[in-house]
Amino acid sequence: MPFYLTQSLHTALRQSPERIATIHGERRHSYREFAARVARFAGGLRNIGLQPGDRVGMLSLNSDIFLEYIIGTLWAGGIANPINIRWAEAEILASLDDSGTRLMLVDDMFRPVAEALCLRLGSALQCIYTGTGAPPPGMISYEALLAESPAVDDAFRHGDDPALLLYTGGTTGKPKGVVFSHTNMASAALAMRLASGTGPIYLHAAPMFHMGDLQMMFAHFLGGGTHVALPGFDPLKAIIMIGQERVSDVLLAPTMMNMIISHPEFSKHDLSSLSQLFYGTSPITGALLDRAIQAFPSASFVQGFGMTETAISTMLPAYYHTPAGRAEGKLRSAGRACAHTEIKIIGADGAELPAGQVGEIAIRGPSVMLGYWNKPEETASVLRGGWMHTGDGGYQDEDGFLFIVDRLKDMIVTGGENVYSGEVENAISQHPSVAACAVIAVPDEQWGERVHAVIVLKQEAELNKEELQAHCRRFIAGYKCPRSLEFRNELPLSAAGKVLKSQLRQEARGRH
Amino acid sequence: MPFYLTQSLHTALRQSPERIATIHGERRHSYREFAARVARFAGGLRNIGLQPGDRVGMLSLNSDIFLEYIIGTLWAGGIANPINIRWAEAEILASLDDSGTRLMLVDDMFRPVAEALCLRLGSALQCIYTGTGAPPPGMISYEALLAESPAVDDAFRHGDDPALLLYTGGTTGKPKGVVFSHTNMASAALAMRLASGTGPIYLHAAPMFHMGDLQMMFAHFLGGGTHVALPGFDPLKAIIMIGQERVSDVLLAPTMMNMIISHPEFSKHDLSSLSQLFYGTSPITGALLDRAIQAFPSASFVQGFGMTETAISTMLPAYYHTPAGRAEGKLRSAGRACAHTEIKIIGADGAELPAGQVGEIAIRGPSVMLGYWNKPEETASVLRGGWMHTGDGGYQDEDGFLFIVDRLKDMIVTGGENVYSGEVENAISQHPSVAACAVIAVPDEQWGERVHAVIVLKQEAELNKEELQAHCRRFIAGYKCPRSLEFRNELPLSAAGKVLKSQLRQEARGRH
Repeated sequence: MPFYLTQSLHTALRQSPERIATIHGERRHSYREFAARVARFAGGLRNIGLQPGDRVGMLSLNSDIFLEYIIGTLWAGGIANPINIRWAEAEILASLDDSGTRLMLVDDMFRPVAEALCLRLGSALQCIYTGTGAPPPGMISYEALLAESPAVDDAFRHGDDPALLLYTGGTTGKPKGVVFSHTNMASAALAMRLASGTGPIYLHAAPMFHMGDLQMMFAHFLGGGTHVALPGFDPLKAIIMIGQERVSDVLLAPTMMNMIISHPEFSKHDLSSLSQLFYGTSPITGALLDRAIQAFPSASFVQGFGMTETAISTMLPAYYHTPAGRAEGKLRSAGRACAHTEIKIIGADGAELPAGQVGEIAIRGPSVMLGYWNKPEETASVLRGGWMHTGDGGYQDEDGFLFIVDRLKDMIVTGGENVYSGEVENAISQHPSVAACAVIAVPDEQWGERVHAVIVLKQEAELNKEELQAHCRRFIAGYKCPRSLEFRNELPLSAAGKVLKSQLRQEARGRH
Repeated sequence: MPFYLTQSLHTALRQSPERIATIHGERRHSYREFAARVARFAGGLRNIGLQPGDRVGMLSLNSDIFLEYIIGTLWAGGIANPINIRWAEAEILASLDDSGTRLMLVDDMFRPVAEALCLRLGSALQCIYTGTGAPPPGMISYEALLAESPAVDDAFRHGDDPALLLYTGGTTGKPKGVVFSHTNMASAALAMRLASGTGPIYLHAAPMFHMGDLQMMFAHFLGGGTHVALPGFDPLKAIIMIGQERVSDVLLAPTMMNMIISHPEFSKHDLSSLSQLFYGTSPITGALLDRAIQAFPSASFVQGFGMTETAISTMLPAYYHTPAGRAEGKLRSAGRACAHTEIKIIGADGAELPAGQVGEIAIRGPSVMLGYWNKPEETASVLRGGWMHTGDGGYQDEDGFLFIVDRLKDMIVTGGENVYSGEVENAISQHPSVAACAVIAVPDEQWGERVHAVIVLKQEAELNKEELQAHCRRFIAGYKCPRSLEFRNELPLSAAGKVLKSQLRQEARGRH
């Protein structure tokens, strides 16, 4: 039997059925209770028509039900398609449509969006309401579904069967569904445990719909650990939960780390239980690291890097964050290939480059996605010979440490979220006043990078930042909308007529 | 790209090409040199006709060339079929015939056996001689093959492609080939690293043809570690190598551990480099553990359990060997299911039994074999619903720790080797003086268990131990031959006419 993601639940039932599996506010479920709810939710999904391989969405803040949804969907034989809660309605609609998702869980917070989606989709979308109180008309109550449904046996999908479908923005402006098999995610979870030695109590501070938190989720299930859900990131709530639940492990973006240690209440809580702080999405600055190490003297710091398409691919172990390790000069790197992964740097001709030379980063291994949902051509263009061609530029040093120097795919990483310039440009260019535009990343103290628009207006047209943002929000998520803009009479173009973004970026950096 | 066992070599070449990969006596090869030899050996195999999926045997003591053979065979696209060096010629012949192995490496030590095999098999077997000096007539020189062959690219076989073929004795007396895929062995290696945290320098003290050492081999390749080869187990040589090469990790059977710490030269060497002592095949006695912990104060002790068919399946972590951990009373167990593995106990009706009840141990997970080579019926009889039905009896306690209480398959574990009673009985019953016989395990201070024969002689026939052993050696390996015997006028039989081995065992235990 190849890898199957429900295995850890079966094992936990034999090894530690009374251990707490999930904590959400005052609510605690043991592994025995969690497994019973998972099996009944799976029975409910089958009762309302789920067939093997059907997609099930969830639009919700972090919660214990989110964990039941992920494992329960797999238990039922479905594919979990957790939805980015920061997306605009149009984006969510496009992803539901592309994936053919007909079942979706929704919590209190996103009830209005779900109601609008139901109105648009009619009988093509069945919502399951996880909130408190009576469900809105047309929706099924999650708790009623559990109460009325039989516990069913695990469907035991496994190996190359798709398990997760994660939508990501694309260079073309259209979201693409990244398909992960059971083997893909299980190998990522094993590698995560191997490199980071996870402890018994994990705080889900990062959003559960993201690859980053999802792979930590599976890594912690592998150890039969306790999951503490933090609904929406709030630095004070994170501080309180770490102290109150004696959390041992957390994954944070550097931005979140900064918000936590800068909070005025920080020093009033005992956070000495924290033994590991895993961070990703962007390298940490030496100054922030110094402050964080002082703030969390009990914790090891581990950095990971990966794309949605590859899951965790490199790891910078705790050692390189210590005084001795920092002297080796690897802290600005993204670490080295995980145990299950190969990384190479390739030139324009596709050949591997020697250490020290910058080229495109390519990643191969069992955690690399199966492909994009129903997009064989896009899949073939990035997956060649088993290698994921990331579109990011970087180099490896003599010891195989990876340094990321540029994002060839024209992507902005702001507050831990990926934004493709192409989709922002698509939105901006639909404004009647815009003649041309280019979107670039500019350095930002709070967000790491921010989305910056360079705009050429039509003759005699006018536009201000607030107008532009309101316009963009109709098409794309708030975090994708430009936080700053500038106007020009023309965009710098190459001989071939392409916008010279490198020149725009250089000029923007000169001003910062 | 799913798991592929050559991945770690590609990664080591990028991360640590100058690190020492193999040590054999005075000979040291860096990863760069090791990879070059592997690629040329693979080129040589293809030059002499190896096709994808062809089996390549090796009959040899541990050596650096054994490591080149394992990785090089996979690199070439073949299946490695390492041969149990303790087997009799007839057993080896049966395994070569069953597997259709036409290429075999052989060292100085086993040259006579190989010459006899070549004589029997003629052009059906091509031997590659890894010894010093000119090769025997008809054999190819390993070093000449490397010198004359081009380095070829990795064949990149992966996932469910067979990688290893390991012959094991069978209840019917005929050896069966256990087939492991790349995913099977890669997941076992990941689990081994996960549970035992392997260090930088591993001593191959156990034989490399065995599953125990093979999975440690792959676990250590995953970390780009250094492999020290010990050709044939000798306690003094093991002591000297640990001290001289600053070995960090070793796998030992309890018998080997005892021989090392009891050696008069033991205390004269500095063995403080040893950070982990992994032991398997049988639980350790409290007395031996106490002595070993005193003898190796720097080392953690970790126990593993698995069959050839399942690879590593349970692990008893270092904690349970410490004074605090021993108080929890798990030391007599085989530990708990590894991260990738499920274990259940089933009753005669196939249903899972609750904690505390004895039944057959069943194991499921990605490291369980693909099946037996060319034996679909035998495979189907042990692999049902993805579960390997081990034939061993045991129970799990409330915390999921596995206690092995009986071997349902009538197997004897002597000095770390498995002996099936059936194959010994087959050999004994071919002696003209024997009317009936039964072979059982009896406790033995030196070997854990020893092979004991209960024999009914034909009328007026005579037989002594030496005659019986000489007779048996013609058919089976020396370690399988009875070390003790007794004569009876008749064997105790059940109502159904089956030999009551339980009664024989009980009586034998009464005498010890």
